[in-house]
Amino acid sequence: MSLKFLGIAGSLRQKSTNKGLLRAAQASLPSGVSMEFADLSDVPFYNADLTAKPAAVERVLAQLAQADALVLASTEYNYSMAPALKNILDWASREPDNALLAGKPAAIMGAGGGMGTSRAQYHLRQVCVFLDLHPLNKPEVFANAFAGAFDGDGNLTDERLQKLVADQMKALADQTLRTKA
Amino acid sequence: MSLKFLGIAGSLRQKSTNKGLLRAAQASLPSGVSMEFADLSDVPFYNADLTAKPAAVERVLAQLAQADALVLASTEYNYSMAPALKNILDWASREPDNALLAGKPAAIMGAGGGMGTSRAQYHLRQVCVFLDLHPLNKPEVFANAFAGAFDGDGNLTDERLQKLVADQMKALADQTLRTKA
Amino acid sequence: MSLKFLGIAGSLRQKSTNKGLLRAAQASLPSGVSMEFADLSDVPFYNADLTAKPAAVERVLAQLAQADALVLASTEYNYSMAPALKNILDWASREPDNALLAGKPAAIMGAGGGMGTSRAQYHLRQVCVFLDLHPLNKPEVFANAFAGAFDGDGNLTDERLQKLVADQMKALADQTLRTKA
Amino acid sequence: MSLKFLGIAGSLRQKSTNKGLLRAAQASLPSGVSMEFADLSDVPFYNADLTAKPAAVERVLAQLAQADALVLASTEYNYSMAPALKNILDWASREPDNALLAGKPAAIMGAGGGMGTSRAQYHLRQVCVFLDLHPLNKPEVFANAFAGAFDGDGNLTDERLQKLVADQMKALADQTLRTKA
Repeated sequence: MSLKFLGIAGSLRQKSTNKGLLRAAQASLPSGVSMEFADLSDVPFYNADLTAKPAAVERVLAQLAQADALVLASTEYNYSMAPALKNILDWASREPDNALLAGKPAAIMGAGGGMGTSRAQYHLRQVCVFLDLHPLNKPEVFANAFAGAFDGDGNLTDERLQKLVADQMKALADQTLRTKA
Repeated sequence: MSLKFLGIAGSLRQKSTNKGLLRAAQASLPSGVSMEFADLSDVPFYNADLTAKPAAVERVLAQLAQADALVLASTEYNYSMAPALKNILDWASREPDNALLAGKPAAIMGAGGGMGTSRAQYHLRQVCVFLDLHPLNKPEVFANAFAGAFDGDGNLTDERLQKLVADQMKALADQTLRTKA
Repeated sequence: MSLKFLGIAGSLRQKSTNKGLLRAAQASLPSGVSMEFADLSDVPFYNADLTAKPAAVERVLAQLAQADALVLASTEYNYSMAPALKNILDWASREPDNALLAGKPAAIMGAGGGMGTSRAQYHLRQVCVFLDLHPLNKPEVFANAFAGAFDGDGNLTDERLQKLVADQMKALADQTLRTKA
Repeated sequence: MSLKFLGIAGSLRQKSTNKGLLRAAQASLPSGVSMEFADLSDVPFYNADLTAKPAAVERVLAQLAQADALVLASTEYNYSMAPALKNILDWASREPDNALLAGKPAAIMGAGGGMGTSRAQYHLRQVCVFLDLHPLNKPEVFANAFAGAFDGDGNLTDERLQKLVADQMKALADQTLRTKA
């Protein structure tokens, strides 16, 4: 078994707790699974008038082409998704036959206010219907970022949440193997 | 009576049908109402690490400060909102006391596939709860952009939809007057 | 000033915490406001084949006709609304010209698991768009029913939540007065 | 191969177009697949105070226990699900270990106004997350019930929709076989 996960966080902040969740996921992968992160910092807004794909977009799309499954850290702003996460999915959806996304399993997690980005996550799940991504139903990962679960650099320090993230990565690996079988 | 509406479209395309909807709205305003458009083309993604607000953001925030009500043309990508529209609302939400948005009436319209962006519009309505915007319930404007309702430059040419947009602008003016009374 | 609120809870249980929220609301009404509760225990499912309206439905519709505003205690089952609450709104929506609901202000509250029925509440808000109800944006009331906030009979005993409910009733009275002005 | 599907319609009307969709599904099953319908006409509202399960509930739960996959005809009232459909899922969710639902594939279809119950279907998809049902992403079935696609008895007569329903049943059979493999 050799599986590749791609982690994408909606927040552009250096010390983002959502990036911290992705690092926690990477640190708890089952054996045989590797995980890269997408860098969204130079990805522009999708615009149908652009005739050439920007290099920063091409880089992420190349990572998506290699990925067996996605790990989406769904930052929430104002009760919905962070635009940067939605935007890279919009870019990816424009490839012929939706080849970068169709049928791939996904895990959704998020760190935010008291409800841990749940409102954004259900919007993201609706997006997955059209993109033909297959998000895990369980476990859901809702991390309260203001209750001491993260350190000042955005690292996840809460053991219960670390275990929950590890459980989700295990479930994603299992689901990905079933899909590829 | 002198009311100012600000129109914001989610699409960045020059010939966007959602920009066309806004022009149709502007052309059908009740007397005493004026309408400007926000230019999102140079607005970057919100990033909490940015210490200064970019000039393109400042320009739109200044328009929002002047606006009595918003007209949101809710482009739909992949069953949810266009990131550019969500992003400027996220920027605006960071002002002290939510002063640019709180309590303002809004009209939501959209042009897109067969369901006319309805899936994106209900996500946008959830965002309005947190932003304390007050979207009209009726009339809803769902424009099918692929059924000959727009010309090649994105101008709305369908008379039934033109009337619906005009009715919505009338309802928004009435609601805005009640709010300011 | 003399305003009438109608409280409707989604749960049919005798000791429902959502009924408890409504009693807390009733106990904290601003002066000049009175509040009745709807009894859903004998209301059958809406069925277009029924030629006569059942008496239990008629009773609630008569209360709705008298109500200036609604207080909806949105019990959550399985990430969405309790059928009993949705069902009485469906019955009410069949009246000519939507006369029992159109334009009325509403407050939404709920007691449930860790997120306090938030998932059900956003579904209910979408229903309000079609029904032309006007739910308050703020304050939102999400009560965790499993954290000692209620006693064994479903009475709200948590002081912070009691104050939040009272604040919401004040906001609903203010909004209702503005609507009737 | 021998697969059992259970069809559940949200509407209680005799001539319901959603029941008609289920009959169209039954008429287009791949070989080796059989399909029963749930009868919701005597199923009462879930109420935690009830100590014994009503017979009408027991009958549907027994069908669910036998079913390999679900076909949900998601009648839409007022921009969300029909209470009767939501209610039987709520009853089923109370079984130990969620044994009647967990992990089962589901197809979602619906007949209604211009958007063919899409607003209800996305709410139902959120419910499926908690219930650990696995709804197909594609094809989605949105049937406009007012455009001549059904006869006066609720039978689906539109050939394009008949084919779409058949395609969905094929996709559900394929997905169910993969799940059981």
